[in-house]
Amino acid sequence: MTVALIPVVNGDRLNRNISQLAEIGKLPGGGVSRVAFTAEDILARQLVQSWMIEAGMTVQIDAAGNIIGTYAGRQENAGTLATGSHIDTVPVAGKFDGVLGVLAGIEVVHVLQENNIRLRHPIEVIVFTDEENSVLGCKAMAGTAVLDPECYRRNDGTPIEACLARIGGDWSQLATAKRQPGEIAAFVELHVEQGGVLESTGDDVGVVIGIVGQYRHHVTVTGRPNHAGTTPMNMRKDALVAASQIVLAVNKLATATPGEQVATVGYFSVSPNAANIVPARVDLKIDLRDMSQTHLEDMVAQIKNQLVDIAAATQTEIEMTQMLHVLPTLAAPDIQAAIAQICQHLGLSYTYLPSRAGHDAQEIGRFADMGMIFVPSRAGISHAEDEYTSPEHCTQGANVLLQTFLKLDEIY
Amino acid sequence: MTVALIPVVNGDRLNRNISQLAEIGKLPGGGVSRVAFTAEDILARQLVQSWMIEAGMTVQIDAAGNIIGTYAGRQENAGTLATGSHIDTVPVAGKFDGVLGVLAGIEVVHVLQENNIRLRHPIEVIVFTDEENSVLGCKAMAGTAVLDPECYRRNDGTPIEACLARIGGDWSQLATAKRQPGEIAAFVELHVEQGGVLESTGDDVGVVIGIVGQYRHHVTVTGRPNHAGTTPMNMRKDALVAASQIVLAVNKLATATPGEQVATVGYFSVSPNAANIVPARVDLKIDLRDMSQTHLEDMVAQIKNQLVDIAAATQTEIEMTQMLHVLPTLAAPDIQAAIAQICQHLGLSYTYLPSRAGHDAQEIGRFADMGMIFVPSRAGISHAEDEYTSPEHCTQGANVLLQTFLKLDEIY
Repeated sequence: MTVALIPVVNGDRLNRNISQLAEIGKLPGGGVSRVAFTAEDILARQLVQSWMIEAGMTVQIDAAGNIIGTYAGRQENAGTLATGSHIDTVPVAGKFDGVLGVLAGIEVVHVLQENNIRLRHPIEVIVFTDEENSVLGCKAMAGTAVLDPECYRRNDGTPIEACLARIGGDWSQLATAKRQPGEIAAFVELHVEQGGVLESTGDDVGVVIGIVGQYRHHVTVTGRPNHAGTTPMNMRKDALVAASQIVLAVNKLATATPGEQVATVGYFSVSPNAANIVPARVDLKIDLRDMSQTHLEDMVAQIKNQLVDIAAATQTEIEMTQMLHVLPTLAAPDIQAAIAQICQHLGLSYTYLPSRAGHDAQEIGRFADMGMIFVPSRAGISHAEDEYTSPEHCTQGANVLLQTFLKLDEIY
Repeated sequence: MTVALIPVVNGDRLNRNISQLAEIGKLPGGGVSRVAFTAEDILARQLVQSWMIEAGMTVQIDAAGNIIGTYAGRQENAGTLATGSHIDTVPVAGKFDGVLGVLAGIEVVHVLQENNIRLRHPIEVIVFTDEENSVLGCKAMAGTAVLDPECYRRNDGTPIEACLARIGGDWSQLATAKRQPGEIAAFVELHVEQGGVLESTGDDVGVVIGIVGQYRHHVTVTGRPNHAGTTPMNMRKDALVAASQIVLAVNKLATATPGEQVATVGYFSVSPNAANIVPARVDLKIDLRDMSQTHLEDMVAQIKNQLVDIAAATQTEIEMTQMLHVLPTLAAPDIQAAIAQICQHLGLSYTYLPSRAGHDAQEIGRFADMGMIFVPSRAGISHAEDEYTSPEHCTQGANVLLQTFLKLDEIY
């Protein structure tokens, strides 16, 4: 038997497993709620581990709670070909985000085992801890996690430090989760696109060129609360008028110039928020994403300048604080090329595109060669119950992952 | 004894009573919290009734819970000269809003009694029920209250129907609180300005020309929730971008044309309100006030036109619903002239100005001649703990009220 026989994944099994996992935390509207560290997350982790073992892998859990399934290779001391994603979800989610990458990885190994194929490299399938909130799992593995428990809390305020033991992790040993250079030779993550590009181009597969960088800033606008009836217009310091100008300036920054940058004000809170009081304060968050760190820095600088002008024009005080900065991560050219060749080989149409959402691959890509395979999301919807990727696209994505691993086994 | 001797109010007693009333519901920051129907409101009502009796009045409570203190007149069947305001407050308030009008009315009667003066007309001092929320007291008296208990709720949702008995009212008899034509010959309310006009002109007294009319509309902007990273700018339906344009359009409507109209968006709520989700919905409230009903109608029409344009430009749906409409109420020219003459007589500087806040006088003015006397508010601040009017201005306002009653007793 040689690799040229082209083993293919068992699409029925893959899609059946996706449906079965979606039973854990199932919502009435067809979606899933499986927030990290909840009973549902723990149940799902147990099920996935049993599938790893069934597929012929050994299973370990590192100090960050990451589940690492290993399928041994032929060559001693070779770095691993790794894949994986996450099975935790946002509070109201669909069935595919993260799950596809994990279950496709297990399916790839399962079919290799069934075909008695063992690669030169060991294969790792990783379930990263809490991708949807703290992103602790992949950060710990990359050594980019801050070792201060105060920085990691669940949305309800519970410290993650206290939850880690529940899933087999150990906060006090977190540093041991860091992977050494060379341990992972290449990492390829299959994921649903979570955007509408593939649907609009009509392509089966997206070859990800990199994961955008991101800045998030908190802006506070301070005006003066006044009676909305008795305060003449020219005596007001209206924080909402100033904040509205900020929203439009941020929007214009992304729309008025060419490029694929996005800029969003998604959080916006007014106080005291009463119909008859001139708003005294607005808190808002600005989210900027682009593949170019230079362009991101330029956008931040432009916003800062505009805030000065808006504050002067509205007689308000405006403060801007950086909350988050993620550097862009480029996909390794060799992995991009391998994915594209496989698509041609399998007769799948494909396009190159950036990932505008964060993924576990973003952190792993900081210390290992990284690539990502996208499959289409219906209407670009994700983080919602009606998130949907067809069984055919799921199977196609898994086959691209399988063949990419066979290819990378030759070149790494 | 003749009226020409000019009795004056006891300013010390008036200001002492203002301070004493402020002890009930006192806040650590120097303000007062005495929301209608609370234990504090009830205690304050008892104290005020005792002062009315001490000043020589008989006290009645009507079905709406309004406290009516009456100082008998000399002429049978004469309509009353009425004054008053409210002693309930917003949740965080100062010591003067409403209180000055009530206590100055009692002081006016007290000094007449001490001087053995009895006017031709009876005098009524009225404490109106719940001015700061439902405005039920003066509306019931004007017959403008809707007799549907569902329309009157406290901010915590409790129906006012169920609270009325606590203060001596009776919802089932609410219609009996309506005053008949001629019962009140004239109504004059003394109130702190709650704005910064008098402070900026340096005048002691404001002669109110009328109380502005008001429209309040609820606007709902519906966009589409999307991932803030993965959704390209041109595929978004961002409800916050649309709503920000509305805020600026409303502001421009009031600032770009001459006139004293005010336009405010004070309430503004974004959903789902997460930094990484394009806003799907914004609810906001537009508050418009002006002395001219025609101008108000024109502003509402202009906003409606602009909402159509904004919806088209942002690919959102925008709905606007009227929540509140209050017709402007003009002050009676005879009462305005009387107040102005009294100011000249007492050597007080004065200016004519509209009231841009609602007052009990607004409803009473719908069926009786109405006038209002304003005294300065420091920095125009009200509905806040640092609301302040100097003891001198309180005393001056009470003296203008006293002399105005003596004058109106001649001409009505």
